[in-house]
Amino acid sequence: MDKIIQEAEVRLPSTFLRISGGSADTPKDQPRDRKTMGFVLVHAGAGYHSESKAKEYKHVCKKACQRAVEKLNAGAPAVEAVTAALVELEDSPFTNAGMGSNLNLSGEIECDASIMDGKSLQYGAVGALSDIKNPVLVASRLLSEALKGKLSAGRVPPCFLVGRGAYHWALSHGIPSCPSDKMATKFSLSAYKRNRRKIELAEKVESDYVQAKKRRQSSENQENGSGSLDTVGAVVVDQEGNVAAAVSSGGLAMKHPGRVGQAAHYGCGCWAENACNLNPYSTAVSTSGCGEHLIRTMLARECSASVQSEDAHQSLLDTMQNKFISSPFLASEDCVLGGVIVLRCCRCADAPPSTDLRALLVEFLWSHTTESMCVGYMSAQDGKAKTHISRLPPGAVAGQSLAIEGGVCRLGNPTD
Amino acid sequence: MDKIIQEAEVRLPSTFLRISGGSADTPKDQPRDRKTMGFVLVHAGAGYHSESKAKEYKHVCKKACQRAVEKLNAGAPAVEAVTAALVELEDSPFTNAGMGSNLNLSGEIECDASIMDGKSLQYGAVGALSDIKNPVLVASRLLSEALKGKLSAGRVPPCFLVGRGAYHWALSHGIPSCPSDKMATKFSLSAYKRNRRKIELAEKVESDYVQAKKRRQSSENQENGSGSLDTVGAVVVDQEGNVAAAVSSGGLAMKHPGRVGQAAHYGCGCWAENACNLNPYSTAVSTSGCGEHLIRTMLARECSASVQSEDAHQSLLDTMQNKFISSPFLASEDCVLGGVIVLRCCRCADAPPSTDLRALLVEFLWSHTTESMCVGYMSAQDGKAKTHISRLPPGAVAGQSLAIEGGVCRLGNPTD
Repeated sequence: MDKIIQEAEVRLPSTFLRISGGSADTPKDQPRDRKTMGFVLVHAGAGYHSESKAKEYKHVCKKACQRAVEKLNAGAPAVEAVTAALVELEDSPFTNAGMGSNLNLSGEIECDASIMDGKSLQYGAVGALSDIKNPVLVASRLLSEALKGKLSAGRVPPCFLVGRGAYHWALSHGIPSCPSDKMATKFSLSAYKRNRRKIELAEKVESDYVQAKKRRQSSENQENGSGSLDTVGAVVVDQEGNVAAAVSSGGLAMKHPGRVGQAAHYGCGCWAENACNLNPYSTAVSTSGCGEHLIRTMLARECSASVQSEDAHQSLLDTMQNKFISSPFLASEDCVLGGVIVLRCCRCADAPPSTDLRALLVEFLWSHTTESMCVGYMSAQDGKAKTHISRLPPGAVAGQSLAIEGGVCRLGNPTD
Repeated sequence: MDKIIQEAEVRLPSTFLRISGGSADTPKDQPRDRKTMGFVLVHAGAGYHSESKAKEYKHVCKKACQRAVEKLNAGAPAVEAVTAALVELEDSPFTNAGMGSNLNLSGEIECDASIMDGKSLQYGAVGALSDIKNPVLVASRLLSEALKGKLSAGRVPPCFLVGRGAYHWALSHGIPSCPSDKMATKFSLSAYKRNRRKIELAEKVESDYVQAKKRRQSSENQENGSGSLDTVGAVVVDQEGNVAAAVSSGGLAMKHPGRVGQAAHYGCGCWAENACNLNPYSTAVSTSGCGEHLIRTMLARECSASVQSEDAHQSLLDTMQNKFISSPFLASEDCVLGGVIVLRCCRCADAPPSTDLRALLVEFLWSHTTESMCVGYMSAQDGKAKTHISRLPPGAVAGQSLAIEGGVCRLGNPTD
């Protein structure tokens, strides 16, 4: 089925930060309390963020940015900073990750998370993980363990663990257990009961009156057109210019036990790749939305590859239109739900190429086909984070239209 | 670390089948017992296949080809034929899939499998699945269920299920349980005991004498340089020109419980994509080898994309060299282990373009960096399958060299 982009909301980059007090001339062995270069962009999900809860969503994004910047200012690499941001996002009861995650069909919490380091290109992921408060810590530990090389007897270390195996691996690596009932919130439990009744009603209607096929078609969009799909994620560049990306999710509400979404899928939930001979830019991407749509379009990797072309804004717009909303992989879907945050950066050409610490030009973008997407961003030199709930323009149809916004930030410019 | 291709064994296509008695003029509503067009290529793993067991490996490949061709001759689509081939490969106690799968660290069998349909581009996968004899049947059922559209209350059907959730989904969809102890074989149990002792010894040596890091480096290749990594898979084109691919694996021996390998990873274990506006060829790929290497290089999708260029043989060779052995994603690995089977096809230009049943030109290739790879292939018109154990040339180093072979087959040429 051909789909028409009903409305493409294209706003020009709304933010241009010029950071003064750059650190281009800061020696490498600076004290850990000196401010350094670096930038973080986080999201609290592409889905529907009600005005009534806007304050909480923004607040958690702000705190997540601060946690990442604290790490950057302490000289930590991007991969540690992105983990710190994710822990904060997971700990919020308002996001669908870690604490307060959606419950599955059986009333259990099963989380997905993954992380990628643009420098080593290592990757760690967990899927359908229960009883661990911060799934991103397990993904992050898988990544750092893989960096150590082979296990005993030449065994290859795993990059992806699921279920009880992932849980026991976490415990054996010092990550504490957290009972599921402590991770559920009043809100997630009442949503579960409401959804349970909705499914029972839908299945009763089906058995009484209609064929399964007809029912399935008619009930499309009931949940996913307006529901919350608020996976969380972050992308970071550190003072060395290394990028990292991470994502964490409780998955779709009322998913089948054992279902793994894009947050644990390589190339789909997050992507980070430092600049190299082939790629002029370092890129980091984190996605949110309907996991199956994000998996089948491999959206994180697609967006990362697309912004290697000159105009990041235009190429991200083209990718969201042609490789997501109108993707041949989703030809049978008339409502394609997702969002991305994208960071790309390069060393500025106007600084001496001999120094590793010359200014970084950071472009940051977000785009979504869902009703809204909550983002926050902050440079390591900023006093506090900026937050924003991006919304589709009035009248635009979620799943068929998109919004795209972003900004540019020059870090540590020695001429400033 | 830069790696040098020590030796690239490039043999020209070794097989050219000219099939007479084509079915280009066969009406669509032919009786189901009439032979039709179609082709299947299977593999019983890239790893090490001893001469002493060569007969068994070839025999199971032959039987798997026959099962697929029976389906094709009964008018079944590619996705059904590829499933039939996989069931046969899984049922063999000699392959590391289904029956006789490798045991994990805890002595349990946990299987991965996935399937992709080139027509709908739908995909189904299971990971770390226990107590099901044929994991591919669950992956295949996930795919066919997803084709039916949304679940009750508008829920998106899952494309990837893991662990106990996957097991219960299988039971609720009529796929029977099979106790793990019936899936283990004498061979897999004795290999487990041997590996267990090897790990205990390696860990004793480590704690007694050396630092973990040194031990890890020195013990590289002990298991993976010569071990068996015999995941199984198949690629099929049916009489309509639709392609499908599937893969199934018991995973690395002594893997951590919950570890999921490439066989359950989208884009890594298998790929199938019919020709479309953008792609002149229909392609199908199935991979085998070290899961983590195949995941991080997304080898199935990379190979599929590469053979869209004119010279399939050369582009697959380039991909195996540049995007696998020398991939920047595996820069820290000096032994990169894997293999692929690739099928690409297009309608022949010398037949009237108005008919859907004009001749198909099928190119089929296999390539591996492991010691050996066992393959079988058969067209729907053939009486029996051809099988072959491809080996690296003498002196070539597994993980650093590659072999590539293949053939061309013209199906249903109306001028023959």
